[in-house]
Amino acid sequence: MLFVTSVEILVNRNAQNGSVDVLDLLQGWGSGVGTYDDFNTIDWVREKSKDRDRHREISRKRRQSITALLLSVSDAFSGWLLMLLIGLMSGALAGGIDIAAHWLTDLKEGVCLNGFWFNHEHCCWNSKETTFQERHRCPQWKSWAELTVGVTEGASAYVVNYLMYVIWALLFSFLAVFLVRAFAPYACGSGIPEIKTILSGFIIRGYLGKWTLVIKTITLVLAVASGLSLGKEGPLVHVACCCGNIFCHLFTKYRKNEAKRREVLSAASAVGVSVAFGAPIGGVLFSLEEVSYYFPLKTLWRSFFAALVAAFTLRSINPFGNSRLVLFYVEFHTPWHLLELFPFVLLGIFGGLWGALFIRANIAWCRRRKATRLGRYPVLEVAVVSLATAVLAFPNDYTRMSGSELISELFNDCSLLDSSKLCDYGPLAKGGEPAGNLSEGTVGQAERPAGPGVYTAVWQLAMALLFKMAITVVTFGMKVPSGLFIPSMAVGAVAGRLLGIGMEQLAYYHHDWDMFHGWCSPGAHCITPGLYAMLGAAACLGGVTRMTVSLVVIMFELTGGLEYIVPLMAAVMTSKWVADALGREGIYEAHIRLNGYPFLEPKEEFVHKTLATDVMRPRRSDPPLSVVTQDGMTVEELEGLISDTSYSGFPVVVSPESHRLVGFVLRRDLVISIDNARRCQEGIVGVSRVIFTEHTPVEAQGAPPPLNLRAILDLSPLAITDHTPMEITVDIFRKLGLRQCLVTQNGRLLGIITKKDILKHMAQMANRDPDSILFN
Amino acid sequence: MLFVTSVEILVNRNAQNGSVDVLDLLQGWGSGVGTYDDFNTIDWVREKSKDRDRHREISRKRRQSITALLLSVSDAFSGWLLMLLIGLMSGALAGGIDIAAHWLTDLKEGVCLNGFWFNHEHCCWNSKETTFQERHRCPQWKSWAELTVGVTEGASAYVVNYLMYVIWALLFSFLAVFLVRAFAPYACGSGIPEIKTILSGFIIRGYLGKWTLVIKTITLVLAVASGLSLGKEGPLVHVACCCGNIFCHLFTKYRKNEAKRREVLSAASAVGVSVAFGAPIGGVLFSLEEVSYYFPLKTLWRSFFAALVAAFTLRSINPFGNSRLVLFYVEFHTPWHLLELFPFVLLGIFGGLWGALFIRANIAWCRRRKATRLGRYPVLEVAVVSLATAVLAFPNDYTRMSGSELISELFNDCSLLDSSKLCDYGPLAKGGEPAGNLSEGTVGQAERPAGPGVYTAVWQLAMALLFKMAITVVTFGMKVPSGLFIPSMAVGAVAGRLLGIGMEQLAYYHHDWDMFHGWCSPGAHCITPGLYAMLGAAACLGGVTRMTVSLVVIMFELTGGLEYIVPLMAAVMTSKWVADALGREGIYEAHIRLNGYPFLEPKEEFVHKTLATDVMRPRRSDPPLSVVTQDGMTVEELEGLISDTSYSGFPVVVSPESHRLVGFVLRRDLVISIDNARRCQEGIVGVSRVIFTEHTPVEAQGAPPPLNLRAILDLSPLAITDHTPMEITVDIFRKLGLRQCLVTQNGRLLGIITKKDILKHMAQMANRDPDSILFN
Repeated sequence: MLFVTSVEILVNRNAQNGSVDVLDLLQGWGSGVGTYDDFNTIDWVREKSKDRDRHREISRKRRQSITALLLSVSDAFSGWLLMLLIGLMSGALAGGIDIAAHWLTDLKEGVCLNGFWFNHEHCCWNSKETTFQERHRCPQWKSWAELTVGVTEGASAYVVNYLMYVIWALLFSFLAVFLVRAFAPYACGSGIPEIKTILSGFIIRGYLGKWTLVIKTITLVLAVASGLSLGKEGPLVHVACCCGNIFCHLFTKYRKNEAKRREVLSAASAVGVSVAFGAPIGGVLFSLEEVSYYFPLKTLWRSFFAALVAAFTLRSINPFGNSRLVLFYVEFHTPWHLLELFPFVLLGIFGGLWGALFIRANIAWCRRRKATRLGRYPVLEVAVVSLATAVLAFPNDYTRMSGSELISELFNDCSLLDSSKLCDYGPLAKGGEPAGNLSEGTVGQAERPAGPGVYTAVWQLAMALLFKMAITVVTFGMKVPSGLFIPSMAVGAVAGRLLGIGMEQLAYYHHDWDMFHGWCSPGAHCITPGLYAMLGAAACLGGVTRMTVSLVVIMFELTGGLEYIVPLMAAVMTSKWVADALGREGIYEAHIRLNGYPFLEPKEEFVHKTLATDVMRPRRSDPPLSVVTQDGMTVEELEGLISDTSYSGFPVVVSPESHRLVGFVLRRDLVISIDNARRCQEGIVGVSRVIFTEHTPVEAQGAPPPLNLRAILDLSPLAITDHTPMEITVDIFRKLGLRQCLVTQNGRLLGIITKKDILKHMAQMANRDPDSILFN
Repeated sequence: MLFVTSVEILVNRNAQNGSVDVLDLLQGWGSGVGTYDDFNTIDWVREKSKDRDRHREISRKRRQSITALLLSVSDAFSGWLLMLLIGLMSGALAGGIDIAAHWLTDLKEGVCLNGFWFNHEHCCWNSKETTFQERHRCPQWKSWAELTVGVTEGASAYVVNYLMYVIWALLFSFLAVFLVRAFAPYACGSGIPEIKTILSGFIIRGYLGKWTLVIKTITLVLAVASGLSLGKEGPLVHVACCCGNIFCHLFTKYRKNEAKRREVLSAASAVGVSVAFGAPIGGVLFSLEEVSYYFPLKTLWRSFFAALVAAFTLRSINPFGNSRLVLFYVEFHTPWHLLELFPFVLLGIFGGLWGALFIRANIAWCRRRKATRLGRYPVLEVAVVSLATAVLAFPNDYTRMSGSELISELFNDCSLLDSSKLCDYGPLAKGGEPAGNLSEGTVGQAERPAGPGVYTAVWQLAMALLFKMAITVVTFGMKVPSGLFIPSMAVGAVAGRLLGIGMEQLAYYHHDWDMFHGWCSPGAHCITPGLYAMLGAAACLGGVTRMTVSLVVIMFELTGGLEYIVPLMAAVMTSKWVADALGREGIYEAHIRLNGYPFLEPKEEFVHKTLATDVMRPRRSDPPLSVVTQDGMTVEELEGLISDTSYSGFPVVVSPESHRLVGFVLRRDLVISIDNARRCQEGIVGVSRVIFTEHTPVEAQGAPPPLNLRAILDLSPLAITDHTPMEITVDIFRKLGLRQCLVTQNGRLLGIITKKDILKHMAQMANRDPDSILFN
């Protein structure tokens, strides 16, 4: 299939140039022309031309028959169908992952006698004996201690439960790392750095394949259930992109065109965030702001559709039983006061500091892993980290629960019915009824002194904060699927809640202070610690990922009120500024650089005053540029040139003396074409002349027939002058998605700049190691 | 100021090239180098380079002194400050416009005795005699009939009110058109087509100036109040952009750089929509999807900030007294049924048809206005249309009220307390209490038979629909500020409401039909006509403007529930498909083309198979390309070349024989530089050689000193080969924002392609008149 199309395209491309023998071509080229090697960069211009050719062909045929018309209509709608499929599948997978992870998480604590496949909540669903306070206790649900030792309280029960918790955690994490290692090494990590790189035009075969999808889905459940400090949000983006890539194979349009497929993947990453946070608009903006490289408006519209379909699918599955898409949906009822912007900005500063420090620490740790023996034992590493996490997490309620549960608890605004420790407030000291009585449960409580529960909770939260901060650094980057959103948000939520409780107690004990005057009178509800937790979470996530608009919109969709956008913006903006001051890169860019992917960051401005001539190859000391002349080389000479050099393409010039540029030919195309010609075309031998001109000249009597390769010649290579500033060159590469660009001086071909040259130059100018860019 | 900076930049640009005498330059160039003429296109690449140079300069100086450091910090934050100012100012203006328009609209009906500056609602605010039903009647408010004739009912009262209504309408519209004609001709129309063009890099001096702002604000109030079929939404975008442009003058960074200023204007257009619909996110997406050309992520984030500030400012002003930002905020409570998608899609089809037909009719009418005598009497035209509108609108309640009020009324879900005709339902016929009694006012009413009020309303609405459809076609494009959003939405809302009432009655009388089975049982509330009105409004607006994501998000922000996004998407998508099938262009693109602006539509794909060689000039029959040689021409020869040709720039080549490209020089820069040199530089005469090389050669004894103009030479012109397909060329122009591009063949300079050539070629390929593109 690919063979025919490539030739068709080549024929089309040539038809416009005039007289090329079509039969000649049909014999000539193999199936590889126009495709890419693994770990190579695609040529956006070529891919988009290919798609336009295909589109023209369909439009042309449309007028000829009904079948062709129907085909053209189905072609036009295939994009929408694809989006529908991706939305349905991703929504379903996300629902499945939520349910399975919930069940396995509860399995660490106990088992349901009605059926081991029920999670704690479902097990006690129909239990009538429970009050609202004790809705999570029912006779059907047995903790491991109850089941084995027969007691629910006391030291022995605690030890048994502890032991079982650790064993299950170890088992889950071991299974996860084992599956990843054995079946799909690409399933590890969050996947977002790689997806960003792929979307920018890089080829990583198998990264979005079937096996990766299956293994990532399973191991994600296991990794989340094991209690490691990781989340499912980033991997969900990877899962959605795998779905997108797999469904692409159903449609020729997307299967055969790397650029078109990347449009689908952009939409799929929007779908991933949409199901992760129940935020379709936020997801689309995330894709636009954070991951996508090329995002035409058509993709915007389709992404939005897919994100909605996915959100609705997830809601029909209803994994949390509350027709919400996420565990930590929040509703606040108290307005915030302008003075509170001060603590909000403090949270932003904390988030920025944490983000920058986390990135440094994590990158240092990952470098260490790569450089030392540590990297050779990934299974052991996971086991050790998992053991440490489980052992340290169990004693503390707030680390024992899963990340989402923790965030949900911290975001929660205390109502009078709440039984959690965080809501254990004492009675009002200085007379006056709590205002909460007036409108129970809806407006929340009046400021009251913290009870013993809150004090315990504060200590536990402080411990949890330190623990989460430390363990997340070593967890992210291990060989299990691991997202960063939830751990970052958890750190921020804990810090925010602590600050919120502090503010609340301050307001209670010192409501006579000027700053609380006319706002926090006794008996009034003025500070919402849950809001602080939310802002802290946003700030930390912002510091780590450097998301801005998408983060605010995601949070806005979680809370559902325009009311809190101003505090959110204040916190997120401060966090970004602080973090940027300490290091320009977000965690994903840092990991891209760590892995040496050829990613041309669209956000980073190139500020240096170098010129194209400083970057192009050959350098002054190098041998001259390897060029192909349009009619002067033999097959043997070309083969020699190919084997002597490793360049991925050669400029074609009129003559070696004039160095006037004719076109550009790719190494891969050249190799395949010569191979094919030698095999299939009669009379092609080593001394046959290779011709790139329009008209094949008549050879002297007795000489072998020439090989005309104009069909594989790119007649429109982009050329810039040697005086072009690099800032403009970088812009051209970014915006047009080039792989290479030729450099001329006063009309003579002088050299070539590839994407890799640019990346190396940028690394050099930023005082980084230019050899860290590994791939082409 | 501009003089110094231009020279600085030139010096900087040259410093990198080596040895150019700085003093030489400082004497040489006037203040015009690097600026643009009116009705010309900017060079994005050059503007962005200029900004990077400026930025580098600031970064360099930062390390030298505290003052410079502070300057650099203030420079970094000036963008945010600018956004804050634009948000505050636009929000305030929008609030003022709302209040003033409301007051003047009510003035057509009567006057408040407490003070003529109160509108009807404010006048009766404190009146205690009124019940909820009659909250709009109070003794302080006198209709014109009451005031003059002394009666409130009867024929004479009706005639007096009618007359006063018409007189006021005529007065307002006359004032509006008079002010526009006399003080700011650019203040007419919606402004969005021109803003799109300006954002794409076109210069229209004064379009966003102080006078335009003042006059547009005033006349917008008058035009809206006159009852013409127009809205304030589009003009609000223009007003916000004027604010943006004016505030740009406060900051050197934005005043001097056309590209940076366009980033600000993109954000300002987001602000405009944010205040028009109370939809900050929708506004940002509107700017991204509909108006902006170059939208970097930094702008996204800033637009969002500005849009929020504006929305909050507007809310503090609270023009509608309900802490909502728009009159037609809606809250529906009934879920929709899957089967309802069928009528929703019908509404989409209606919207698409109406959109496409409206565009054709309006463009035909505008062409007629341009071509015939009609265009010569704009004041008369406005007066006639305004008279016709007033005379025809008064007898019908639904056309007498303003567009926003109409939409608000149609979107409204009937509660039991509602006294409007649209909610006049009879009692339940077949027994059973209305379900509405159970939860009064919140859930709405059960399906009930339409009462006489509803029947009257249906007839009046049908008449209003026809009237609005006809009058909007002639209104849009007159010489008053006129937005299209409200009239389009009104048409759609009327059609939607009619369909909704139809469906509702169908469900009531035929609830035994299969399609209503299990969903519309008697006594249940199943159809919300208000929802139909909203979907109709969205569909019609979508058909006219072809907005998609932004439209859905705006509507989502109006209704505040994810619930209705699926019907919205269905309606908007259908509408776009239907409208696109009948004509590819939205109303704004159609008006851009009507006015001949050089706008390179980013959404339209170029699908033809032409090559650069088919488009470039000179054509085969033309005289050869006018070039400048780098060291072979005298001042006189150059002046001759300039006066003989009208090209806006000349390629500089090594020699006329080799045609090897060295650089590109702009006509404007050349003229200014030669003029300045003749005036200020000693010894420059007609026979002085003009040199573009790096080193000035030593002239023969006695010869006048040469003039070195390398400083104004663009050393990095982009060149493409003659075989480059036009689709790629168009892409390059679009993405890099080029003004011209050189064409080479085998390394020899062959010709030049300008943006205008491309636009003409595109017009030709689409069988349109290529001479319709008027400007450069």
